[in-house]
Amino acid sequence: MTETLQLLGRARAAAAAIATANTKTKDLALNNVAGALCRASAEILRANAADVEQAQGHISDTMIDRLTLTPARIAGMAEGLRQVAALPDPVGVCYERIERPNGLLIEKLAVPLGVIGIIYESRPNVTSDAAALCVKSGNACVLRVGKEAWRSAHAIVSALREGLSMVGLPEDAVVLVEDTSRESANEMMRAVGYIDLLIPRGGAGLIRACVDNAIVPCIQTGTGVCHIYVDAAANLEMALDIIENAKTSRPSVCNAAETCLVHAAVAEAFLPRLRERLIAKRQQDGLVPVELRTDAAANACIGGTPADENDFAVEHLDYILGVKVVSGVQEAMAHIQRFGTGHSECIVTEDEKTAALFVSCVDCAAVYVNASTRFTDGGEFGLGCEMGISTQKLHARGPMGLKELTSYKYVIHGTGQIR
Amino acid sequence: MTETLQLLGRARAAAAAIATANTKTKDLALNNVAGALCRASAEILRANAADVEQAQGHISDTMIDRLTLTPARIAGMAEGLRQVAALPDPVGVCYERIERPNGLLIEKLAVPLGVIGIIYESRPNVTSDAAALCVKSGNACVLRVGKEAWRSAHAIVSALREGLSMVGLPEDAVVLVEDTSRESANEMMRAVGYIDLLIPRGGAGLIRACVDNAIVPCIQTGTGVCHIYVDAAANLEMALDIIENAKTSRPSVCNAAETCLVHAAVAEAFLPRLRERLIAKRQQDGLVPVELRTDAAANACIGGTPADENDFAVEHLDYILGVKVVSGVQEAMAHIQRFGTGHSECIVTEDEKTAALFVSCVDCAAVYVNASTRFTDGGEFGLGCEMGISTQKLHARGPMGLKELTSYKYVIHGTGQIR
Repeated sequence: MTETLQLLGRARAAAAAIATANTKTKDLALNNVAGALCRASAEILRANAADVEQAQGHISDTMIDRLTLTPARIAGMAEGLRQVAALPDPVGVCYERIERPNGLLIEKLAVPLGVIGIIYESRPNVTSDAAALCVKSGNACVLRVGKEAWRSAHAIVSALREGLSMVGLPEDAVVLVEDTSRESANEMMRAVGYIDLLIPRGGAGLIRACVDNAIVPCIQTGTGVCHIYVDAAANLEMALDIIENAKTSRPSVCNAAETCLVHAAVAEAFLPRLRERLIAKRQQDGLVPVELRTDAAANACIGGTPADENDFAVEHLDYILGVKVVSGVQEAMAHIQRFGTGHSECIVTEDEKTAALFVSCVDCAAVYVNASTRFTDGGEFGLGCEMGISTQKLHARGPMGLKELTSYKYVIHGTGQIR
Repeated sequence: MTETLQLLGRARAAAAAIATANTKTKDLALNNVAGALCRASAEILRANAADVEQAQGHISDTMIDRLTLTPARIAGMAEGLRQVAALPDPVGVCYERIERPNGLLIEKLAVPLGVIGIIYESRPNVTSDAAALCVKSGNACVLRVGKEAWRSAHAIVSALREGLSMVGLPEDAVVLVEDTSRESANEMMRAVGYIDLLIPRGGAGLIRACVDNAIVPCIQTGTGVCHIYVDAAANLEMALDIIENAKTSRPSVCNAAETCLVHAAVAEAFLPRLRERLIAKRQQDGLVPVELRTDAAANACIGGTPADENDFAVEHLDYILGVKVVSGVQEAMAHIQRFGTGHSECIVTEDEKTAALFVSCVDCAAVYVNASTRFTDGGEFGLGCEMGISTQKLHARGPMGLKELTSYKYVIHGTGQIR
């Protein structure tokens, strides 16, 4: 038995205790963990400095920035733990209560999933966020971080485990995989009986590896090729605001827009204003301008970089926007069906019928009428937290909060009924 | 591209039309299908007779019985279709409606999954039941039946498709895989992008093949090693009634009991009565007696066939019951955790505290206090229908009705909100 499987076995053994822990104990644990994290601040910063030093020159500056911890970021992680403690407990919620004619009382009750595996890359804050959501939802968790962030994660997990044991919960409810090679990720993907849910949080490569190899239940998160369709009946000024926001407010995230589809009837009126807003105005304001990758029709109107098909298929995660002229909502929806990733899609229109058609036909987690795709987020949806954004249709779709980390069981009380 | 993948592509192409069909159209289609089925009765019986003739000598008598159609069974299938038509439409149900401080209106709406694949064995009625549930829930379905039942299924699917086209829905919303070799099942398990949910309905071998090979989302159904734990505080007469019912009312189904666990404190009082009830009394009444496979302690008390470990691990699906003496509820729960399949588990006790502990700690789809495990069934739970019983924790657990064949999407209406 490999080291990783042994670790999974320890998490499995801890699952029953965390699953049946009451709300008060779990909340106290999370608040203790927050304290333990603050007390371990110096140690965590030392471990993180070693990670950052080792990673220099091997990963991009953006990744280094994501990896780097500061006292303020650690305090933020602790605050996040306290916020999760303050959320309502999802476990034990009664979804349905059925009294049958034969006197059986059937209750459908929320229960933890058991053991949740999380494979993530280099953001140390994911370590405490993910663990907190698992503990609150009564699940044991197995964290597997990229090698760049292992020391930081290890220091954070030590503090987390200390906080758990202070309230008598098993430390092994939160474990960190030691092996950061690809092999340990593959083992987790195939650990039937050990892992009840695997959540990969990372780039397209990781997600694809999970789709291809995972035989444990798995939720795909995060890839977002999101579209804004500007209809013939759009308020064009609103469309400009939404596109600029969806593209530029945080280009590196999955709910950022990648492609703008413009109805041919308004293309001539709209496209020059789009270019003005995303390039000239942003340059004037000292902001990063957006590179427009335009299809033939858009290119004839406003120039830009001629787009090839791949430009509409990839998540740029950068100040790059695909622009395509379409004949109407049907062509827009066909384009979205072909290139979308089932994340977030938006129509800008004042025509209610067209909006209703778009809403009904576009198959994605979050479909918007006249609002930025950037709102697809657990906090913005009012869930209070988020474990990732599911782009699949089974179990959970869109932002995953605490409820999405639970299953349910039917509990049936009888007085000797037989069938 | 193989024939099977082409067929999957046709179902995929039909999915949008069935997904957006309104309730009236779907219900009319199902009622038309019921009529088409009755009209095609002679043809279906001819095809079925050919299947049965071919299968004679190759499969067991029980399987031959499951395979054989009669005019009454076809009428029953048609009636089942009409009942599904009468159920409420699960699509479009609003699960949540959130008004955010920024004015965004967020609705969480039930939507179809898309394309559902069903791999099943030789029961022809599954063909119409499964297709009806898929159509009602707005999903296209791909049926893949065992070769013994292919002619029957083909005749039934022809009638189904006729009923769909009568109301202008695409015939390809219901398709039957031609290839009945193992290869087509494997193709379905790996058809990412074509199949949104795969439901294997069959024996342990098929389920295991899906767990090991499927990379499309998959729901495990049907394997049930169910236990009845007779506590020290049990009403013993009630325990006898429940055990006899759970074991003998239909031994071949997944919610039948396979093992009885008896608290040591009542073993001497209870076990002789159990033997009397399940063997002597049933023989007197001209019923099939139950073979008892007893552990050492039970064997010392009432004899029976000495059980080996495997007897507690398998689904006998027959008049065979494992019997084991345990030291109390903790050992009973440990046994269930080791040998149970997450289906249905029962405690017989008058002690509320012990019942509460059992209910909270036993990890399965349906946990019973003082009632037969045979109630784990969509109809008995009041769902009106059933696509199978999920023994997994993700997406659906226990009896799967129409709701479990849907996903949801968030629909967000704004007035130009940006983040």
